[in-house]
Amino acid sequence: MSMIGRSLTEVDTPALLVDLARLEKNIRRYADSAAKARVRLRPHIKTHKTLEIAKMQLQAGAGGITAAKLGEAEVFAEAGIEDIFVAYPIIGPEKALRAARLAQHCRLIVGVESEKGVQQLSEAASQIGSTLLVRVEIDSGLGRTGVGQEAAGKLCRQVLDAPGLSLDGIFTFRGASFPEASSRDPQILGRLEGEMMVAIAERLRRAGIPIQEISVGSTPTATSAAEVPGITEVRPGTYVFFDRMTTQVGTSAPDELALSILATVVSRPAPDLAIIDAGSKTFCGDVIPANVGLEGYGATIDGQNGVVIRMNEEHGTVRLAPGFSPEIGDKLLFFPNHVCTTVNLSDEVLVTHGEVVKAIWRVAARGRRQ
Amino acid sequence: MSMIGRSLTEVDTPALLVDLARLEKNIRRYADSAAKARVRLRPHIKTHKTLEIAKMQLQAGAGGITAAKLGEAEVFAEAGIEDIFVAYPIIGPEKALRAARLAQHCRLIVGVESEKGVQQLSEAASQIGSTLLVRVEIDSGLGRTGVGQEAAGKLCRQVLDAPGLSLDGIFTFRGASFPEASSRDPQILGRLEGEMMVAIAERLRRAGIPIQEISVGSTPTATSAAEVPGITEVRPGTYVFFDRMTTQVGTSAPDELALSILATVVSRPAPDLAIIDAGSKTFCGDVIPANVGLEGYGATIDGQNGVVIRMNEEHGTVRLAPGFSPEIGDKLLFFPNHVCTTVNLSDEVLVTHGEVVKAIWRVAARGRRQ
Repeated sequence: MSMIGRSLTEVDTPALLVDLARLEKNIRRYADSAAKARVRLRPHIKTHKTLEIAKMQLQAGAGGITAAKLGEAEVFAEAGIEDIFVAYPIIGPEKALRAARLAQHCRLIVGVESEKGVQQLSEAASQIGSTLLVRVEIDSGLGRTGVGQEAAGKLCRQVLDAPGLSLDGIFTFRGASFPEASSRDPQILGRLEGEMMVAIAERLRRAGIPIQEISVGSTPTATSAAEVPGITEVRPGTYVFFDRMTTQVGTSAPDELALSILATVVSRPAPDLAIIDAGSKTFCGDVIPANVGLEGYGATIDGQNGVVIRMNEEHGTVRLAPGFSPEIGDKLLFFPNHVCTTVNLSDEVLVTHGEVVKAIWRVAARGRRQ
Repeated sequence: MSMIGRSLTEVDTPALLVDLARLEKNIRRYADSAAKARVRLRPHIKTHKTLEIAKMQLQAGAGGITAAKLGEAEVFAEAGIEDIFVAYPIIGPEKALRAARLAQHCRLIVGVESEKGVQQLSEAASQIGSTLLVRVEIDSGLGRTGVGQEAAGKLCRQVLDAPGLSLDGIFTFRGASFPEASSRDPQILGRLEGEMMVAIAERLRRAGIPIQEISVGSTPTATSAAEVPGITEVRPGTYVFFDRMTTQVGTSAPDELALSILATVVSRPAPDLAIIDAGSKTFCGDVIPANVGLEGYGATIDGQNGVVIRMNEEHGTVRLAPGFSPEIGDKLLFFPNHVCTTVNLSDEVLVTHGEVVKAIWRVAARGRRQ
């Protein structure tokens, strides 16, 4: 039975809903902001993993997309998207060969942050006669992947000397979720990140290394980073949907949240508790709520009043505020803490306009983590 | 390129590996234990979601399977499995109708714990002329779904009076993970759970309610619960693979863990840190490690010495013990905290014998949460 044209009251649960009007508005907001700052918007598709949304972003002015892994890039290249940056260090001969092959079908840029990475990519590209565009990853404080300023110069020279590789620029990622910095202003962090990257690029250029692209940013930091002179590209992802975390840091308003979870009350174990049919296979569990200043794993939308305080795989325990007493069988809407990992748990999203399902979109690159 | 016949050094990462010898041994151990106690073993397939493993369990003596949701049951029924218990309260007219339809294709038992559930199942079964076997869920202390002793009697009578329904017995679930009770002995908890359920069944029988089946148990509690006279069925799930949590509570030994994650080192940001290409899209995040007495989200197998202390979607930060210094490109093996939710993140598992891939099994019911 197709769900298209049906009311939300008829939708089987748990289900992921995308509010089309809000999605379009969010896509427009970041496209406008990048256009105003005259930087390229290269949205990160890891948030939605959905071909339809990537195409909306490109139509709104995005100049290519960002992917987290080669497997994601392969799905989007197959669908005809022509300019893809895999913002991840490609390691391993098998992956290097896949990258070199993919570069024969689209304009592919890959990340690198080690000598081994440069060697493996160069060997693979040389082996099949393709050219890989490469960006060197800078660690701007996350302590994860990326190199410091000193090592960046050395690595850029290795890329310049490596057969089959072409140096495209530098990039960094500050961390979209700011788990350690929820009290700090993302606008300030974005500016600092941008200035740091431009300074590094300037020093590399003075040393004779041609740096074309300086790519930065996450959803909270993209707007301010884009305004730093010299930045050429921003890579926000979460902004298409926003979530409780981006709202917590002030980047989004509650009425901009475009992705929600529809769940059914299956039990009422106590006057202040409801059990819903959505648990840790529906709401993401990658963020410890207290670490980002949130209560619970999800919260109901306006007019209802509940918080998901515990999750098992197929059960969510919702603490109800006084006066809110849904019955068994009632359907409730929740906003998740982190949309990217929530979407990764779903095979599809239902696209809604008001209370009606308008389309079903497949999460085409779900689980493509290789 | 098929991975079958290849060595683990050639496997692309991240990948889930199943040690076939350990899997067979674990399946045999619980089958023998149930046979010795003369109870039916009805393993919960939510752990593996894989047809091949369910068939191994049935061949080893399991009398049917348990599923968490109707969507899982539909996948296994389609594959020819004939006796399925959905240990979850079925709520909603759409789901009740799906259950009634599925009952025409296999021997289906469903859970119920509310008057509304009884009504909806009865209406659906009557509508299409099928009969649904029903078990009433008892809350044995988890405070999630299930009813107390008093309400159980009332609900059983409603089932007995409802057209299209047939009362099969009672069931409970104590929680496989024991998040709140890691310091308590699961053997004792299993016995208490079994004794409580038998006492409830006896009282219902004295009141004239025919209770045939008394179904209990999780992996840690199944063995001791099975030994309580009167128990007819146990439903462990995790035992096929075991995990860090079952080892933590003493149910499994480290050399019984049958599911591991192969990941590649992509960066070495510090002497005591490695970044791997597996994060929260690979290791489950549904358990807060400190709450179950564990350190980190995964730990390396013998001979290596690292713990996954932080996760982003595609990055795991591994803290290395002194003396262990893997290079970029090295592949490491990790055990996850909770196998059920880890498997739900994967489309397939690689079945290994020694260092060689023998088969690839699809996680056929992954994500079937409706």
